[in-house]
Amino acid sequence: MKVTVLVRLKPGILDPQGEAIGRALGGLGYAASAVRAGKVFDLELDAADAQVAEEQARELADRVLANPLMEECEVVVHG
Amino acid sequence: MKVTVLVRLKPGILDPQGEAIGRALGGLGYAASAVRAGKVFDLELDAADAQVAEEQARELADRVLANPLMEECEVVVHG
Repeated sequence: MKVTVLVRLKPGILDPQGEAIGRALGGLGYAASAVRAGKVFDLELDAADAQVAEEQARELADRVLANPLMEECEVVVHG
Repeated sequence: MKVTVLVRLKPGILDPQGEAIGRALGGLGYAASAVRAGKVFDLELDAADAQVAEEQARELADRVLANPLMEECEVVVHG
């Protein structure tokens, strides 16, 4: 089952990469603000149904893909 | 207007990070395969409507956020 995991910094955590990108975009004339950078992982899970896939994805995201102290995860199961 | 840009490696491009994560997940007992790693950017655009925001986001994604030779972008405009 195809799963997408989005890993984003928690709201209070500083994001120097996002800030740098925001400055670069401003310098190029784009009216962009509040830029935040994160990671996306697409994977295939051998799960019986979407609920099991989501539970597995949440667990492995917190164990391997994200640092739960600083990051939060969003899991999307595709069909 | 809030916009999310997902930047993923194109299908043919090797992804050593995704492969390493796939091996790590396998070692931990997860039945995960085809792991691909990418980037996600959340930003606020000062655009009149969703269509303008999407056009701006696609343009800045190809100019700043992604390398169009190796990566492809997905743009999601929120409300």
